[in-house]
Amino acid sequence: MRRLVRVMFVAVILVWFAAPLAAQQAAPAEYPGLETGKMWTFDAPPLAYWAKRYDFHPDAAWLDHVRLAAARIPGCSASFVSGDGLVLTNHHCSRECIDAVTKPGEDLLSNGFVAAARTDERPCPGMVLDQLQAISDVTDSVTAAVPSGTPATRSADLRGAAIRGLEQRCKAGAADAFCQVVTMYRGGQYKLYRFRRFTDLRLVFAVEASTAFFGGDPDNFTFPRHDLDMSMVRAYVDGQPAHTEYLRWSAKGAAEGDLVFVVGNPGSTGRLNTVAQLEFLRDVQYPATLDLLSREIAVYQALAAADTIRGKELRNTLFGLQNTQKAIRGYQSGLLDPQLMARKREWERTLRAKVQADALQRRLYGAAWDSTAVVRRRLAALDVRRRYYAFGAYGTRLLGAAATLVRLPVEDAQPDSARLPAFRQANRAQLERLLTNDQPVDTAVEAALLGAYFTAMVRELPAADPVRRAALGGRTPEAAAHQMVAASTLITVEQRRALLSGGAAALAQSRDPFIALARTIDPLERAVQKQVTALVSQEAQNDERVARAVLAAFGTSIAPDATFSLRISDGEVKRYPMNGTYAPPFTTLHGLYDRSIAFGGREPWNLTAAWQAARDSVNLATQLNGVSTADIIGGNSGSPVVDRNGRLVGLIFDENMEALPLRFLFSEGTGRSVWVDARGIMEALRHVYHAGALADEVAGR
Amino acid sequence: MRRLVRVMFVAVILVWFAAPLAAQQAAPAEYPGLETGKMWTFDAPPLAYWAKRYDFHPDAAWLDHVRLAAARIPGCSASFVSGDGLVLTNHHCSRECIDAVTKPGEDLLSNGFVAAARTDERPCPGMVLDQLQAISDVTDSVTAAVPSGTPATRSADLRGAAIRGLEQRCKAGAADAFCQVVTMYRGGQYKLYRFRRFTDLRLVFAVEASTAFFGGDPDNFTFPRHDLDMSMVRAYVDGQPAHTEYLRWSAKGAAEGDLVFVVGNPGSTGRLNTVAQLEFLRDVQYPATLDLLSREIAVYQALAAADTIRGKELRNTLFGLQNTQKAIRGYQSGLLDPQLMARKREWERTLRAKVQADALQRRLYGAAWDSTAVVRRRLAALDVRRRYYAFGAYGTRLLGAAATLVRLPVEDAQPDSARLPAFRQANRAQLERLLTNDQPVDTAVEAALLGAYFTAMVRELPAADPVRRAALGGRTPEAAAHQMVAASTLITVEQRRALLSGGAAALAQSRDPFIALARTIDPLERAVQKQVTALVSQEAQNDERVARAVLAAFGTSIAPDATFSLRISDGEVKRYPMNGTYAPPFTTLHGLYDRSIAFGGREPWNLTAAWQAARDSVNLATQLNGVSTADIIGGNSGSPVVDRNGRLVGLIFDENMEALPLRFLFSEGTGRSVWVDARGIMEALRHVYHAGALADEVAGR
Repeated sequence: MRRLVRVMFVAVILVWFAAPLAAQQAAPAEYPGLETGKMWTFDAPPLAYWAKRYDFHPDAAWLDHVRLAAARIPGCSASFVSGDGLVLTNHHCSRECIDAVTKPGEDLLSNGFVAAARTDERPCPGMVLDQLQAISDVTDSVTAAVPSGTPATRSADLRGAAIRGLEQRCKAGAADAFCQVVTMYRGGQYKLYRFRRFTDLRLVFAVEASTAFFGGDPDNFTFPRHDLDMSMVRAYVDGQPAHTEYLRWSAKGAAEGDLVFVVGNPGSTGRLNTVAQLEFLRDVQYPATLDLLSREIAVYQALAAADTIRGKELRNTLFGLQNTQKAIRGYQSGLLDPQLMARKREWERTLRAKVQADALQRRLYGAAWDSTAVVRRRLAALDVRRRYYAFGAYGTRLLGAAATLVRLPVEDAQPDSARLPAFRQANRAQLERLLTNDQPVDTAVEAALLGAYFTAMVRELPAADPVRRAALGGRTPEAAAHQMVAASTLITVEQRRALLSGGAAALAQSRDPFIALARTIDPLERAVQKQVTALVSQEAQNDERVARAVLAAFGTSIAPDATFSLRISDGEVKRYPMNGTYAPPFTTLHGLYDRSIAFGGREPWNLTAAWQAARDSVNLATQLNGVSTADIIGGNSGSPVVDRNGRLVGLIFDENMEALPLRFLFSEGTGRSVWVDARGIMEALRHVYHAGALADEVAGR
Repeated sequence: MRRLVRVMFVAVILVWFAAPLAAQQAAPAEYPGLETGKMWTFDAPPLAYWAKRYDFHPDAAWLDHVRLAAARIPGCSASFVSGDGLVLTNHHCSRECIDAVTKPGEDLLSNGFVAAARTDERPCPGMVLDQLQAISDVTDSVTAAVPSGTPATRSADLRGAAIRGLEQRCKAGAADAFCQVVTMYRGGQYKLYRFRRFTDLRLVFAVEASTAFFGGDPDNFTFPRHDLDMSMVRAYVDGQPAHTEYLRWSAKGAAEGDLVFVVGNPGSTGRLNTVAQLEFLRDVQYPATLDLLSREIAVYQALAAADTIRGKELRNTLFGLQNTQKAIRGYQSGLLDPQLMARKREWERTLRAKVQADALQRRLYGAAWDSTAVVRRRLAALDVRRRYYAFGAYGTRLLGAAATLVRLPVEDAQPDSARLPAFRQANRAQLERLLTNDQPVDTAVEAALLGAYFTAMVRELPAADPVRRAALGGRTPEAAAHQMVAASTLITVEQRRALLSGGAAALAQSRDPFIALARTIDPLERAVQKQVTALVSQEAQNDERVARAVLAAFGTSIAPDATFSLRISDGEVKRYPMNGTYAPPFTTLHGLYDRSIAFGGREPWNLTAAWQAARDSVNLATQLNGVSTADIIGGNSGSPVVDRNGRLVGLIFDENMEALPLRFLFSEGTGRSVWVDARGIMEALRHVYHAGALADEVAGR
């Protein structure tokens, strides 16, 4: 979970319920409320379930404590770990700050950073941290803003206006307040989250990037693991360290079998998707995405093999693509699991039967599932054109530049609010920066990606298709790609800048083959996107109806899908079957050295000088990473792991591959959340980084 | 590979050839001669292939050296590692000796053994070691003994007599010679192997069983691995240490990418099987075996869950069954791989086309494949009866005892040579020992296994089947099983002894339900076995024809199937994709401690006192286990791994799960042979076991 994996478009949603089917080891049959997972909200903690399963009975103070000690930062989670505003999160969550505070001649990303004193802590420009203060239900206000019978396209605007009003009223008068209406259950509920926002955050500590990401892309999403993926910032208020609720550090850590909780902000799940929506992902979207990834991977593999000089750079791109492939294959494997899908189908059937049995519900929600199925069938029929009548999917910089140049005069002729978002005034500077980026265009990569794309096009688009004809003009895919790149006048930044400043006149003169292709694609792409947008907004109304039906049937005893809002998830520290044997519940510092030596110390399993020097002085038996069955996903990076006593035992930084299928179909099996162990952090602070004062601060000494 | 996995009956054979098919990553396309694997014989070393692939050009002296330094011991391989007859092998290969030399009050299996001086070395009763001296081709002599047109059932006798004659003449006059005719290419060749046999072997060194088998059944067939599976014996001649060829120890060991060779005795492969034979395994034999294993596993799981007192004992049985399941599933996964099977089919087609193109070959061999296919269809039709009209398959001791009691009077009435083998005079004592074994009969296990077996019987046998009727008599499977066990008079050893001594008269009086069932099964089982035997001997003739066709097409440029005879296999030390990332080429002592601590030091990942004490004194960076792409299988346990210079770098003790499918369909992918690293052995001898003299001896100091 080092990176939030790009997913083309995740859509829409429904719930399932635990109908007891035979042979359902994968189903959490004992706890039927777990069918949508365990990402619980703080306004509806599952007290009865915790009591039954773990004999755990937290009071309001316990819940308030862990909620206030947790925090959200852009794209990640975090927690306060000292009374002086010290914040613990992953290294990959502070990376922007680390880059930003690096001074000329330094390389903090490679070498790490330890602030020797508070005066050495370096302000992170633009970084904010939100601490959740209160949650209130604003469902009625939001839904009242959209009278029944409002057309789908108008609903979003009305709802948006109501939400902005609620957020503004909430924030009014409080300088450090940040308010956000969070959509729960896909529109079944709207909750107003009020945060205290900290805006003065300073970098205190960062490990070396290779220590945070030991094992690199290959080890990502796997376990056993050996990453010290951590950094610390400090929150300041009025120039002084912030004093607020914080987590005490557990010296003894967790043991196998222990109950633990992850408190953080999972980004996005699709467990409320209807069967039709899951089938679309399984049969249309993911196959196309995986096909695209395979093509790109093959291109980079061939280039890396042929070009030993740029091999490493190409291999990094390759690893990134393979990592995305690993994630999508993981999601897809859940959808391809016939047992899981059969269970889902059964629950949808049961839910719809409940709706049919109630006259009012039948009238309000009854048509939603079939309507969504129709939408998805239409989207499926549009899909090949949607993919080939798109600029981004080709993966080439030259076509992207051509698209921008072709569209600029058209968009500029319209009022700002009517333009495509990228072309609005607010984004204009960024658009021009992208176009005039002076990183050299790699013509070998361009030709290879384009050739692969054209080859796929021949397989998928009919011969008479206008884009196919414009692209190939009777040539083979390889010939077309090479000739286009060879003839292009968009290769150098000067060429692109001249066309940008020359406006419509220069463009009209251009004989660039990418500009010619972009002219063909442009109107076709707009027409397809218009149809897609209409279908998706129609579907959004269905989603809301399905969500209401779910809430009518179950209330909030089932958890809503992840929405990058604060959740608490329970789990147990637990080994699991892997590679024919068991993956252990922990790894140790011994394991870190083992894996590095086993690979001859070569990247990405190399050790920094600090770690090499420390091998004889650290306690090698110290736990470094650990796993539990807590339910997490991207966005949970940096979440604290706490024990029954609310003490910090770990720092989430990843999930294993086996957890990937749970994105859409939750089950309690071999999926695990992966953390940096609190004991490993303490040992490293004291004996590798010699940051004794920091260690004392978090240890409360 | 700790144990040679029980396989019900592996059969028969043919070769395939590298026809270059598209998309055959799994095929060693660059080296088409590898289609039957890399288990080369010393009389046909693949010099051209080694030269081309590795630029390696061993002379006769190199080959003689490694051949003479290697050795075969019962069920295992071994090597000489000092000029004073010191022999290195696995711990699990010396286990019988370790048990046998343990004195009252000692527990050498748990605690290990180090002979302080040569006088403390303990003779292993009955152990022998064979060192291969020479190979000669006796194909003509053996085949001449079976005139063409000899009926299938008679051929085996004639061939057996010829082979015994050859072996006796070879051995004549040499006290320490041992001679064996080895069948190669399933009867395509016969080779006379002449060995020097050592009969005075004494235990020198053994680690603790838990160190040899760290990780136990769960870690078996997996990697990364951390087993010091080693022991040493010394060969004596005339009361003095034997002086013979031996391997020098490599101090620097192997590195990733290095060429290595495994020299040992792989037990059995089926890569020359015809497609019909593989399909029988895939569609008939393995599904039935896996079904049986699943049933037994479910029985033991239920019993272990319900019986906390006997939980550990039952879990050991369970782990053993699961390990067998792991192996069979591995074999089956190769057969279920459509690409591998398509490749096999294509090669068989090509081979048969060659045979058809030659008039003589067509007449001699042309009908063999179709005849074997008919045999396998008939065996498939017999299969359900073969399985249910069998005593052993029920897995119960009570039915086994009943079968022995019922058959004894019948068999005793015949001349010794005509009896079933188990009932011949030579085996009589063992038979009675089994029957009067005083280990208590576990009635819960008996009833549960029988119930599961009867349940499967209801699914597979028709209602009118005589065995089904006799077993169930209208009762449910569970009721029948419980009532039979409850009514049995074979539970105590006294009861069984009384029936044994009472003879036919006592038996006639018995009302035991197992004896009644055995009376029904007995004649049916004999009839089915008779048909099976006739079909199998018909098939053996086909196998030989197919083998001749293979040799006509390829000569000995392709390796014969494993036959527990000395082979040399090349490989590279190489990481491989595993669990979404890579398994490293080595593990280290760090990894051993990591895995133990990670599981809280609990069995089977516990460390002995010696290893706990050594944690601060051993060099933790020392390589403990390693992997290569050399081609091995059960029987290779204890094989030396040598480098280009013929130096010892490792000691084979297992293969990974990914190598299991290669039993029938060889390919170079993620399969790996797993060894104990020579550096790990040396470090342990010196710093864990304080066996400095032994370490000096193997290091040549």
